[in-house]
Amino acid sequence: MIYFDNAATTIKKPDCVIQAVVNAMQTFGNSSRGSHEGALCASRTIFEARMKIDRFFHGYGAERVVFTANSTEALNIAIRGAIPGHAHVISTDLEHNSVLRPLYYMRDHAGVQIDFVRADADGNLHYDDFEKLIRPQTRAIVCTHASNLTGLILDVERVGRIAKKYDLAFIVDASQTAGAVPIDMKKMKIDLLCFTGHKGLMGPQGTGGLLLSDCVDIEPWKVGGTGVQSYLETQPEELPTKLEAGTLNGHGIAGLSAAIDFIEQTGLDVIHAKEQALMNRFYEEIRRLPQVKIYGDPDKEKTAIIAFNIRGCDSGKISDILSYEYGISARPGAHCAPRLHRALGTVSQGAVRFSFSYFNTEEEIDQAAAAVREICISSCT
Amino acid sequence: MIYFDNAATTIKKPDCVIQAVVNAMQTFGNSSRGSHEGALCASRTIFEARMKIDRFFHGYGAERVVFTANSTEALNIAIRGAIPGHAHVISTDLEHNSVLRPLYYMRDHAGVQIDFVRADADGNLHYDDFEKLIRPQTRAIVCTHASNLTGLILDVERVGRIAKKYDLAFIVDASQTAGAVPIDMKKMKIDLLCFTGHKGLMGPQGTGGLLLSDCVDIEPWKVGGTGVQSYLETQPEELPTKLEAGTLNGHGIAGLSAAIDFIEQTGLDVIHAKEQALMNRFYEEIRRLPQVKIYGDPDKEKTAIIAFNIRGCDSGKISDILSYEYGISARPGAHCAPRLHRALGTVSQGAVRFSFSYFNTEEEIDQAAAAVREICISSCT
Repeated sequence: MIYFDNAATTIKKPDCVIQAVVNAMQTFGNSSRGSHEGALCASRTIFEARMKIDRFFHGYGAERVVFTANSTEALNIAIRGAIPGHAHVISTDLEHNSVLRPLYYMRDHAGVQIDFVRADADGNLHYDDFEKLIRPQTRAIVCTHASNLTGLILDVERVGRIAKKYDLAFIVDASQTAGAVPIDMKKMKIDLLCFTGHKGLMGPQGTGGLLLSDCVDIEPWKVGGTGVQSYLETQPEELPTKLEAGTLNGHGIAGLSAAIDFIEQTGLDVIHAKEQALMNRFYEEIRRLPQVKIYGDPDKEKTAIIAFNIRGCDSGKISDILSYEYGISARPGAHCAPRLHRALGTVSQGAVRFSFSYFNTEEEIDQAAAAVREICISSCT
Repeated sequence: MIYFDNAATTIKKPDCVIQAVVNAMQTFGNSSRGSHEGALCASRTIFEARMKIDRFFHGYGAERVVFTANSTEALNIAIRGAIPGHAHVISTDLEHNSVLRPLYYMRDHAGVQIDFVRADADGNLHYDDFEKLIRPQTRAIVCTHASNLTGLILDVERVGRIAKKYDLAFIVDASQTAGAVPIDMKKMKIDLLCFTGHKGLMGPQGTGGLLLSDCVDIEPWKVGGTGVQSYLETQPEELPTKLEAGTLNGHGIAGLSAAIDFIEQTGLDVIHAKEQALMNRFYEEIRRLPQVKIYGDPDKEKTAIIAFNIRGCDSGKISDILSYEYGISARPGAHCAPRLHRALGTVSQGAVRFSFSYFNTEEEIDQAAAAVREICISSCT
């Protein structure tokens, strides 16, 4: 199998990640539950992971790194915790349902009003629109760092400046960028950074987190056992405990910690350059094919994604041919990005998405490009 | 290290569990995201796990098995989703904060009223009290299947009959019993069964779930991407998708699935008998020590837990001596069970909890009993 669905999850994990998970499964007690060897072993590894993640994203201290099961949980905590009822928020057409559905939930259950910065037919945003949409009731900007469909990377530093100028909470979904491009919470003026562990960070599934700046304090969403302050009827006020209830995924976090070591040792710039080179190699091959329409603006900064269609063919059909006839895994359909498909005009067709990882090879790219060429000639005619 | 904190997490996982996680980390795409080999591989394993779990707990179909990060998440979904605002609910003094704090949250944010069936000084409940506390506004009974402090197993079948008689939703926290004693949702008339994967089930941390009977339908709590019905603004109505947003912990679920295989192949009765024998061996050794006070009623059915104190000594001090001088991991303090500590009169002292697993040995028990004997003579005098 040649795997090009790394924007959904990276299938190839560094060996050190797998080894760290195995080691954790052989040695970990329950972190923050007791002071015996097994519990301390888990607690130490998890605290080290917090420190690494804080450093990796230029955060505001290890205690402001909250572990979650995935980016979706982090976004639910952030959006429901930071946006007051009846407030107005600004988001974008580029969002994944992990942002959209929590926002719609707040609209339907808490009277929150939402405006979206529109994407044009190339999937680009116009940054002036953020400022134009601000009203007296606006309390937050929620946006992705990069589209999971076209790969377009947003200038979050620019959006962050707007958020700060108007004293708005700035919530960023880094699901597509964590581990793929540098993220600096302070420079980008991000208040709540939501990330997942199993995509660009190359860690285990079941990991992710939320980083809080020092100027936000949000209400707990999940409540329960914390191993400390057991006589309090409410969740303890101290971070990260305030936002973490129940046993953490210590085994997964150990793997995530090793994954960050791998990225730092390899170099985020090296990883980014390789992924970009693979993407560009594929792009150069398929852009010449007259049957292929590629989505997104090729001149913009992008994560390693190419989304395209072949004539009017259903993206699911193309993806199935790639899978069953060529052993190539790509992702068709809507990619949980309904608003961007509307902007691109691809609601009924969906799009075929290739997303590349550091562990893909040029040979795989060439095979995939050859497969797309063959399909262009033979299929859907 | 001799590990006796298995009620917090089982440190020893069967080899097949570790191997299943490793295999998943080498082969899994993102389940329900695409139809390529990697995604299908994850989807198949996860669906098999749902089927096994459904069978294991005598549930209402694989699609009514919802995966969560832990029991706490399952309890938050169940309690917040099934109890309407301003309703009255009945719970017990035996509950863990994973039940109590979601209930208190509903009290503080949704006007829910709570009555607790009281525990006596031996940690026993009086079952008649459930029925006595029912009012016209009562909508649910929420109770643990076994105390995480004394190990007392509740007669949930009896409580379930009361719940059904009055048409109340019956929510059970099986954190301490899943994998340790048989659970039959139908026979016990459980509507919402919440379990964790990393304790008695011997699976990875970061796994757990919620099983729904066919007569409950609850609102989603976490919302986001589902890989299906992407143009819906709300969470899809179909279970399990309705209650599962974002990427599942596929790697962990693969391990949990293997753990259930291990339990079924070994025999739940064999596991239960061994754990009970280890507990009884320890109990028989330490109950003769005049300095030791054991909590809970020894005549009642219990999970493999012994909670005790040595004279008036702080439980944390005893636990530290066990850990640092004898290499024995036990758990002191409040165990997230504040109401039961109040009933037992151990709020300031806490209690030392030994909890046993199938992988503990008689030699470990004998070493631990000898250590407790020595501490009785030498310490806190």
